[in-house]
Amino acid sequence: MTVDTAFPGGEWGFVPRGEIERRTQRFQAALAHAGVDIALIVQNADLYYLTGTIQQGQLLVPAEGEPVYLVRKFPDRARAESAVKYIRPASSLRDVPGVLVELGIGDGATVGMELDVLPVNSFRRYEALFPGAAIKDCSQIIRTVRSVRSAYELAFTREAARIADAGYQAAVQNLRPGITELELSAECEAAMRRLGNSNVKMRQFNEDWPFGNVSAGPDAGLAGYTGNPLAGAGVSPAIGGGSGWRSIAPGEPVVVDLVSFAAGYLCDQTRIICLGPLPADLAEGQRLCLGVQDVIRDVARAGALCGDVYKRANDWMTKHLASTALDAYFMGAPNNQVPYVGHGVGLELDELPVLARGFKMVLEDDQVVACEPKLVFPGRGVVGVENTWRVTAGGLEKLTVSSDELIEV
Amino acid sequence: MTVDTAFPGGEWGFVPRGEIERRTQRFQAALAHAGVDIALIVQNADLYYLTGTIQQGQLLVPAEGEPVYLVRKFPDRARAESAVKYIRPASSLRDVPGVLVELGIGDGATVGMELDVLPVNSFRRYEALFPGAAIKDCSQIIRTVRSVRSAYELAFTREAARIADAGYQAAVQNLRPGITELELSAECEAAMRRLGNSNVKMRQFNEDWPFGNVSAGPDAGLAGYTGNPLAGAGVSPAIGGGSGWRSIAPGEPVVVDLVSFAAGYLCDQTRIICLGPLPADLAEGQRLCLGVQDVIRDVARAGALCGDVYKRANDWMTKHLASTALDAYFMGAPNNQVPYVGHGVGLELDELPVLARGFKMVLEDDQVVACEPKLVFPGRGVVGVENTWRVTAGGLEKLTVSSDELIEV
Repeated sequence: MTVDTAFPGGEWGFVPRGEIERRTQRFQAALAHAGVDIALIVQNADLYYLTGTIQQGQLLVPAEGEPVYLVRKFPDRARAESAVKYIRPASSLRDVPGVLVELGIGDGATVGMELDVLPVNSFRRYEALFPGAAIKDCSQIIRTVRSVRSAYELAFTREAARIADAGYQAAVQNLRPGITELELSAECEAAMRRLGNSNVKMRQFNEDWPFGNVSAGPDAGLAGYTGNPLAGAGVSPAIGGGSGWRSIAPGEPVVVDLVSFAAGYLCDQTRIICLGPLPADLAEGQRLCLGVQDVIRDVARAGALCGDVYKRANDWMTKHLASTALDAYFMGAPNNQVPYVGHGVGLELDELPVLARGFKMVLEDDQVVACEPKLVFPGRGVVGVENTWRVTAGGLEKLTVSSDELIEV
Repeated sequence: MTVDTAFPGGEWGFVPRGEIERRTQRFQAALAHAGVDIALIVQNADLYYLTGTIQQGQLLVPAEGEPVYLVRKFPDRARAESAVKYIRPASSLRDVPGVLVELGIGDGATVGMELDVLPVNSFRRYEALFPGAAIKDCSQIIRTVRSVRSAYELAFTREAARIADAGYQAAVQNLRPGITELELSAECEAAMRRLGNSNVKMRQFNEDWPFGNVSAGPDAGLAGYTGNPLAGAGVSPAIGGGSGWRSIAPGEPVVVDLVSFAAGYLCDQTRIICLGPLPADLAEGQRLCLGVQDVIRDVARAGALCGDVYKRANDWMTKHLASTALDAYFMGAPNNQVPYVGHGVGLELDELPVLARGFKMVLEDDQVVACEPKLVFPGRGVVGVENTWRVTAGGLEKLTVSSDELIEV
């Protein structure tokens, strides 16, 4: 009998040991700074970041010393995929307290957990294991550490950008009168999938990314449950956003909003395409979105406050909308506007930093943000642009590779 | 200015009022029986079941009386999509306690919440709203109510079965030497997507369905983090399952495991296809899987205990494997086997009932289960079959429509 334990890393391979070690050191420094003695990490994106795998278990990261990864399903695969030094099979949560003792963590310690995502029932099982401990939410700590990328990580965002471009080219090539949003989305998704595209993880409870998101005309401007003012119709109220059943007509803007994936890292881009010429006022709106994108690119430099970036973008757009008198609304239809122009994107789609009104985070070098200035023309459609960028001291460096140009087919 | 509030229901429309009323009545009866005074529902699948939409908010369902749905984002869309009578805009959780008072729910009431999925931080915000209440997990109650389907719901499972068949036919038509798992998966996914296929929701924390799952040869037998002994390689350890980069070779079984979607309802099926003839011992294994499927079909009737269905299937397979002396293992490679043959499938992929060792639930008429007897030949591949079935008094009625026959291309 031969047992197959050859877990392939695929085209993108495994996360190298040096990456895991540097990430762990940065996380440990942040834990120590926050007064957390040990973090117990269980969520997939955080696990992948710190171990290189998502095999089910608990990663115990003391503020000082070597992490221990207890794996329930499946230790063989975890060992094949992860560069973490101490990986142990564990059949039960009851193995956790003994490891805490080994790591020198006593009663009364402060234990960090991902309380933003961990369900109550799971939490209660952990809580019962260390009754003397103070349990503290460490989700903001790990999310902040994850927001600054290494060269290794940035290379995969660039790879994901090439995959997004392949999806976008498929949209341009397949746009024809009467094709539905769904049919066009299927072409984009297949083009990306052949290159390795996979699931888009979202951290927020109840949020999903509805595959590709190709939506046209007024449907693109429909607000949806995640708070997205431009969610789209979706195939059903059970999904509530993304591509729907609309047949695409000449002259309506088609929003091609694609999230692509390479080795876990996501890239987010939006382009507008149109059957024939876009009406003049919508084309003017599109130029304004490209204009405000230049403003954001220059203002969003390392050291800038996120809230200030939003304010500069919003002020610029408000002033220009007033002078053009377009019947257009920045970031959402009336009553559904959101005070926001961009978000971090990495292993999850909804990462730090957030370029939103009053958001206090200061931008750092090598953070990655998707900026998406968009205008809604009520009852007619959405124009705008979205690119994924790297934060530098001199402003944003574009990682996405598709041309920003409006394509009229 | 025109504001677009025409939210289209799409090809599948909105959930009718009668459905919502009957579901609510069944849920209320179950709440009363469990001594829960009011349930506060927030999770998408549960919200959709009871309202017909997933717009962000809280559905308050008293054990007696009319439910009230407080909606933050976006009330217009909730009103367009949902047949719930009382839908109110709500900007803050602080609106909840007042509604409890209106509904006659006093201090010291028992409030049901979905504690299996609700994150700790969200829970704590709710908990602070009603300090006098006893909060009780109502997830098992709603999941049990949801497990028994109406004719309306079953019609969509049948529609989803037709979509799965379209995906499967795309796999058969596109299988050729050297095509990768990913490329073949892309064809299946696109064929299903054109027909409205969308996200596969999973209830369990940290679980995702990796799009289509086409995997071949030994890669199909790789165990993965969700506890799935047949998870596949996946494109990256960041995904940990599903289709990977393997080029498909003649003579190796290709597992085409597709989950399809219609109006929220999922259908799950697996077929085996092969370039040229499958080796004789694997073909014999495939016949055993079809044989045990017949056993399950007859044994899994309304009134049967889930654990007994598993036992009958496992006993049958153990006996036949012993007599054939195949180097094959039921439901997973050695060390990674799981004592399980099927699961409920509905608005989520991981529903009740579960056909697993010792599982105490009694099958009821109109529950829907995906049964997936599979054999692993270590280092060589996986054979088996999966269909989605309706439970009846006389055994299982097949809802999936693709032929069970092994296809050799």
